[in-house]
Amino acid sequence: MGTLGLGIAGLGTVGAGVVDVVKRHRDLLSCRCGRAIEITAVSARDRNRDRGVDLSGFRWADDASDLASDPEVDVVVELIGGEEGIALDLVETALKNGKHVVTANKALLAVHGTKLAELADSTGVHVGYEAAVAGGIPIIKALREGLAGNRISRVYGILNGTSNYIMTAMREDGWAFADVLAEAQRLGYAEADPTLDIGGGDAAHKLAIMASIAFRRPVDFDSVHVEGIQAITPMDIEFAQEFGYRIKLLGIAQETEHGIEQRVHPCMVPLSGPIAHVDGVFNAAVVEGDFVDATTYVGRGAGAGPTASAVMADVVDIARGTRLPMFNVSASELVASPAVSIDRRNGAYYIRLMVLDRPGVIADVSAVLRDENISLGSLIQRGRDPETQVPVVMTTHEAEEAAMRRALERIADLDSVTEAPMTIRIEEL
Amino acid sequence: MGTLGLGIAGLGTVGAGVVDVVKRHRDLLSCRCGRAIEITAVSARDRNRDRGVDLSGFRWADDASDLASDPEVDVVVELIGGEEGIALDLVETALKNGKHVVTANKALLAVHGTKLAELADSTGVHVGYEAAVAGGIPIIKALREGLAGNRISRVYGILNGTSNYIMTAMREDGWAFADVLAEAQRLGYAEADPTLDIGGGDAAHKLAIMASIAFRRPVDFDSVHVEGIQAITPMDIEFAQEFGYRIKLLGIAQETEHGIEQRVHPCMVPLSGPIAHVDGVFNAAVVEGDFVDATTYVGRGAGAGPTASAVMADVVDIARGTRLPMFNVSASELVASPAVSIDRRNGAYYIRLMVLDRPGVIADVSAVLRDENISLGSLIQRGRDPETQVPVVMTTHEAEEAAMRRALERIADLDSVTEAPMTIRIEEL
Repeated sequence: MGTLGLGIAGLGTVGAGVVDVVKRHRDLLSCRCGRAIEITAVSARDRNRDRGVDLSGFRWADDASDLASDPEVDVVVELIGGEEGIALDLVETALKNGKHVVTANKALLAVHGTKLAELADSTGVHVGYEAAVAGGIPIIKALREGLAGNRISRVYGILNGTSNYIMTAMREDGWAFADVLAEAQRLGYAEADPTLDIGGGDAAHKLAIMASIAFRRPVDFDSVHVEGIQAITPMDIEFAQEFGYRIKLLGIAQETEHGIEQRVHPCMVPLSGPIAHVDGVFNAAVVEGDFVDATTYVGRGAGAGPTASAVMADVVDIARGTRLPMFNVSASELVASPAVSIDRRNGAYYIRLMVLDRPGVIADVSAVLRDENISLGSLIQRGRDPETQVPVVMTTHEAEEAAMRRALERIADLDSVTEAPMTIRIEEL
Repeated sequence: MGTLGLGIAGLGTVGAGVVDVVKRHRDLLSCRCGRAIEITAVSARDRNRDRGVDLSGFRWADDASDLASDPEVDVVVELIGGEEGIALDLVETALKNGKHVVTANKALLAVHGTKLAELADSTGVHVGYEAAVAGGIPIIKALREGLAGNRISRVYGILNGTSNYIMTAMREDGWAFADVLAEAQRLGYAEADPTLDIGGGDAAHKLAIMASIAFRRPVDFDSVHVEGIQAITPMDIEFAQEFGYRIKLLGIAQETEHGIEQRVHPCMVPLSGPIAHVDGVFNAAVVEGDFVDATTYVGRGAGAGPTASAVMADVVDIARGTRLPMFNVSASELVASPAVSIDRRNGAYYIRLMVLDRPGVIADVSAVLRDENISLGSLIQRGRDPETQVPVVMTTHEAEEAAMRRALERIADLDSVTEAPMTIRIEEL
């Protein structure tokens, strides 16, 4: 086999990282692939920016979509980002033209994944997207290949490094969310517009992709229930610790008797579990299969090096001739099994109320919960200043989300309750 | 592509597990592979034993090596075990005859891996051995493929579930090694002859295989320094906790300035690290690459289900047409880089002495260590009964193994020291 030519679209930190790997590991890569890997052409918005890597010797395409028709490009590496526009055009054209695609673009796949899988099937090319989920961790490979002998019952994990960094810093420093976010932005760990990260959207993109592979469904981003970490307070983090939990923003996709559940929200997970201690910018994913049981994968979820590592894993696969259906079966074999609403979630809850310290508050709250058949696990009430606002926190036994929501609406209306109740789902993971 | 025919040699728990997966996931597998996977023929010592799975419909080979020449067998699945004899004959013949091989046999690969890789190269077939290392965890796939864009600097892990189970039980119950081992044998977690597991040989087999992939070397089992867990006492486990460590039997392979270091021995690892909390029969592997940084993989290291899952991952790869060189580059590209002796190990040590509680003991011990330029980290001395045997435990700062060994010989000779010193290497992993 001859040289494998790459066309790289997008030269941000990840693109520069990919250029760096290809140059630094030229011999190692060709030895592992049995053929040379070369960057043929590159494209980015600004030709003159210094990216810390030497781009001379690569053809420059002013228009990224030129890469899709370049006869010397075998693989289009899409690192532009965004779910529409140039990225979508480029990937679609590349697939139509029979070029393999490697992409780190989770938004694109979460929204257009199934359509792209159909295109890839029609021309028989390989779409690699290891870099789109959990950075350098080879979790897509584990799901598509390493665990291919299993029926998967659940995938979950810490899928957004920025959120995990913020939650970790809040716990370690006791700072409020807004202060940690500002500091993270200053350090470059959070973007100027952090909505996708802290709001859960980025984790939801990744979860929808994983769920499609795991459960043989068309990518179903719209059904993911998404909540972010903005409302978490240092107080909640402390109470979690007291109850034996840690708060993590998780993505969870699982098969239930009613269909496939997909949700992203802050969770309390037991300190003894596999992911409670995955801190900072690290990501973790857990896959549960019927033969393998639970397997856990931990590593850096973002950054130039880890993401470039994931991109190159896909490039090496393509160079070696690996050809897989995008979501593990051909697009025509994906089955749109029912999605389950978060209302059907069954589990325990943490509830924090800010109440005026008057007689009867606990009695009122307990009565509401009793009416919805929700039983209390533990309860902590502190502060003994009459007419001051104090926290009352409790955990419940298993309850249905819909019942919990009804109870919380009534609790919020109680005179002694001064703020909207804070709830965090407890997951015994 | 037509049906992929499997010939399964060896029908112990893992073989029965593979039969179970193939039957139970017939549709899922053919959907994922784009072709059917069928068991064509099986072979085992005793035809009449009840294995809990229906074997009717499979051709029975009295002689396992018949599978290697069976025209309906595309993949020989070797689950016999043992580094010589039938297993070796079968695999060699299969490779020569151009049949793909999937094996769970770490001993075979550790001893004959390079020769088998040459054979596989000569006929262009694929050898899958995911099941040989770390049970259901797809760590071979991570090393050969998922991290293929990296230069690997270190691989290490908890590679033997039996040892980890014993160490965990010793810590949790405070039992002595021999008692926990007897109980583990009763429960079926340890074999009647547990030498390979508790002596570190099994972990060494796995480490040698991983190191070959990671460092592009011929499999070099003979250079692995191996120590087992037999000498660990509950006292050491308690002191470890006091120093902020946990004791784990680790396999560690790393690139040093002098060459490749491969060793299996009990280690003290910090409680805050990625593998200190991997307990019981679970395995963990950590791979460190130059772009990806550290990635960690955790799962069940043995058992019918997890091992069958790993076997099937390889079968699915072969069914989909994946063909990789056995140790990630062709056998002719493996380079026998220098192996480093354990004498060159540089690191901290835990030392436990049993001494007679006399004045001057600590002074004598410290003087010996000073003579070898070994400086003390912390020291715990308890028990104040003159002329009774009491433990003195200490940790050192970084020292070279050879110097430490010289010091220990002199310390063992001191009059007040009543037993051979116990040392455990501290690894800040």
